[in-house]
Amino acid sequence: MDAFFNPRSLAVIGASNKAFNLGATICRFISYLKYDGEFYAVNRKGENVADCKGYTSLAEIPGEVDLAVILTPAHVVPQVMEECGHKGIKAVIIETAGFNEEGEAGQQMQQEVNRIAREHGIRFIGPNCLGTMNAHNRFCCFFGAQPGMYDSVYDDPGTISYVIQSGGVGVLIMDSLVSDVVNVNKMMSIGNKEDIDEADCIDYFNTDNTEVIGMYLESIHNGTRFMEAARRSSKPVLVYKVGRTEAGAQAAMSHTAGMANNDVIFDAACRQAGVIRCNDISELHSMPKIFTTMPLLKGNRIAIFTNSGAFGGITSDLLVEAGFTVPTLSEELQKKIAETGKLYNVENPIDMGPTLSKETFIDIFTLLLESNEIDGLLPVLNVWQPVVIEALMELGEICKACDKPASIYVPNAVDRILQLRREYRLPGFLSPEEAVRALQVSRFYYNAQKKKEQVTSLV
Amino acid sequence: MDAFFNPRSLAVIGASNKAFNLGATICRFISYLKYDGEFYAVNRKGENVADCKGYTSLAEIPGEVDLAVILTPAHVVPQVMEECGHKGIKAVIIETAGFNEEGEAGQQMQQEVNRIAREHGIRFIGPNCLGTMNAHNRFCCFFGAQPGMYDSVYDDPGTISYVIQSGGVGVLIMDSLVSDVVNVNKMMSIGNKEDIDEADCIDYFNTDNTEVIGMYLESIHNGTRFMEAARRSSKPVLVYKVGRTEAGAQAAMSHTAGMANNDVIFDAACRQAGVIRCNDISELHSMPKIFTTMPLLKGNRIAIFTNSGAFGGITSDLLVEAGFTVPTLSEELQKKIAETGKLYNVENPIDMGPTLSKETFIDIFTLLLESNEIDGLLPVLNVWQPVVIEALMELGEICKACDKPASIYVPNAVDRILQLRREYRLPGFLSPEEAVRALQVSRFYYNAQKKKEQVTSLV
Repeated sequence: MDAFFNPRSLAVIGASNKAFNLGATICRFISYLKYDGEFYAVNRKGENVADCKGYTSLAEIPGEVDLAVILTPAHVVPQVMEECGHKGIKAVIIETAGFNEEGEAGQQMQQEVNRIAREHGIRFIGPNCLGTMNAHNRFCCFFGAQPGMYDSVYDDPGTISYVIQSGGVGVLIMDSLVSDVVNVNKMMSIGNKEDIDEADCIDYFNTDNTEVIGMYLESIHNGTRFMEAARRSSKPVLVYKVGRTEAGAQAAMSHTAGMANNDVIFDAACRQAGVIRCNDISELHSMPKIFTTMPLLKGNRIAIFTNSGAFGGITSDLLVEAGFTVPTLSEELQKKIAETGKLYNVENPIDMGPTLSKETFIDIFTLLLESNEIDGLLPVLNVWQPVVIEALMELGEICKACDKPASIYVPNAVDRILQLRREYRLPGFLSPEEAVRALQVSRFYYNAQKKKEQVTSLV
Repeated sequence: MDAFFNPRSLAVIGASNKAFNLGATICRFISYLKYDGEFYAVNRKGENVADCKGYTSLAEIPGEVDLAVILTPAHVVPQVMEECGHKGIKAVIIETAGFNEEGEAGQQMQQEVNRIAREHGIRFIGPNCLGTMNAHNRFCCFFGAQPGMYDSVYDDPGTISYVIQSGGVGVLIMDSLVSDVVNVNKMMSIGNKEDIDEADCIDYFNTDNTEVIGMYLESIHNGTRFMEAARRSSKPVLVYKVGRTEAGAQAAMSHTAGMANNDVIFDAACRQAGVIRCNDISELHSMPKIFTTMPLLKGNRIAIFTNSGAFGGITSDLLVEAGFTVPTLSEELQKKIAETGKLYNVENPIDMGPTLSKETFIDIFTLLLESNEIDGLLPVLNVWQPVVIEALMELGEICKACDKPASIYVPNAVDRILQLRREYRLPGFLSPEEAVRALQVSRFYYNAQKKKEQVTSLV
């Protein structure tokens, strides 16, 4: 799998200098990124495209080719695959569309491609996909990528790896992470997944520097393999799946030729395998930070700490509806908290007055997280004073020391939250609902891992 | 009620030049806003505060006083109310806290205040509230407001009026609307609502330039009155209610002394009265634009029109889960749509290629909205080309002409959507979930109004 993300040499077949040539966008983008490797363009004229040296066929390329990206018309793909085989290429990405998603002729061509791949021991991604990218080594073979579009993704690589069946969703995720505290490690679009599928991806992302795996799926290629890989995974797997309804499944089918899957069965299997099912498409980019910035949530008792009274009630409802408790603190703990400064309510939710010092915040964070009365913290703090930001900046360390998470929500407008993320790298969520959901996701994953350990120890 | 939003003269009782005086923040803010009226400050020294002329008592003020705002300590409030009565003031806002929410002594004081109000025919808002604001005439008596904080709210007044039991939520709403296409008309925080309650507010906002009423409630003062007012309302009423769970109700009680209400009963009553219940607190500011910018949704058949294949599947699922259908278009209509340009799929979702002209967009919008096969449109259009923005800018007019709504989602990052709203006033939603929810809300309201009409015509 590594050749798909770290090829020493890359050939783009079908890249030329004709107007609107999609292969050329790859050549231009990889030249722009200054990826460290050899790249070649294969086209009828043998012309160079951007920094990619041109050849009229794969056979002509003097050195070895680690990875071939095919962007020729569909009917030529079988022949190109054959040439890849003869050249000894073991990793191919077929970005061309027009196979199973386009009727019988396409299906026949697909069978032909599959046979050739088996014959030559080629592993391939696609067809009908966008390709792969690796933010850490500045590699990308997404067609259509424009120089300058994702600079921040490459300038600030992260630890979340994505499997996306569709380019549009990948772009949305990368765009959204630009104003978040986490970022992309690798991304791959697997399209019709005739060979490499979601199970292979989970296994591979368990071997590299990935911390969280996010998946946007329009179908499951092989349910059993997928669930086995998910069960094996020692990293959280987040899945958003389309095709929960018949209309959604039908739309997905015409898009990437997936088969409809029974959603109830899929849902039950996810629960068993510890796969986190995203409720909203945005959870693919909003949830990873609860894993990368905070310890896991090991119990159900949450303390709310707010400087905006109304949010005590709002988040109490949300927490209880999400299966948590908001326990009244012991008198002893209440007394200690009351001693830190002027507070309106110390029972839980803890509701504080508007004029507190940074030390008071830190004291309350520490008292709550160190106590054995609660398992996690939901700070809902309006940052109308710089002191609030300063205190929140230190919360991560306290959480780490106490091995308990805090899910931060700042009840200000979205613009402000995005700014706090960018300027201070504050891992804040965009709404109280999102912050509570993050606790739920953390708790679900912790429980699932526990269960897996028990099962393993029984075997 | 008008005196609360358009007073010719205002007295702030308890405003002085002492440090941290809350009344003074009102005097300073109203001076900053250059509100057209007389304003007075009442304090022990009779000193002026900002542009408010100082007096030692209400009786001393030479002219009439339309509205009194009380921000004295709680134990003085009964006496001040008595003085208001003698001065002939009929509208009072008691912003001071420390009544029912603070035990028995507070409750007794409240009874006293209520008796005095009745005796003198005073209508009052509060206690324990933030007060009122009217963006159109630049009036505000919220304590704590800082000059410059809400310039855009006053510079660009709107037609949404809010009732908020808590200041924090009001601030969040105003902040959030800064980057939306709608804006605030009036806002009022009614606190413990010992006299004026949510029912009065609904009735009043049915007499002014309000188009949509938004309410954040921690309790319902009088269920029957509330539901009757909601039923009478000819404008959409959106409600977010805290206290759905016991923990939430308890937190709300300590905040504004509300009584817990049975949520199942409340929910059923809302359905009957046509009250839109918000699922998320953000719906209070995200949903109004579907009413102010688009016709109501009169049926369940939605067409999806996208340039990002994956979103056809994502939104099909969401629409079906929300009770809509995504009908396959007739062959005749499909043929007409196919003739407009290169399209991948014309059945519904309509999935278009990346290289279309503005005219093609307009043609497809018009074909869909004019057909009798669909009732509303869900455009999910990535605005990576200026032509897409230009086309979307004309969609509102087509919707108006066809009397059908479109709920716009642009599958780009949040920053980009906010920018499109600010620069182009594009009424886009922040997620596919939000866009689908807006259609649901519009449909619910249309149905509820229809039912009310039928009931009325039977009587």
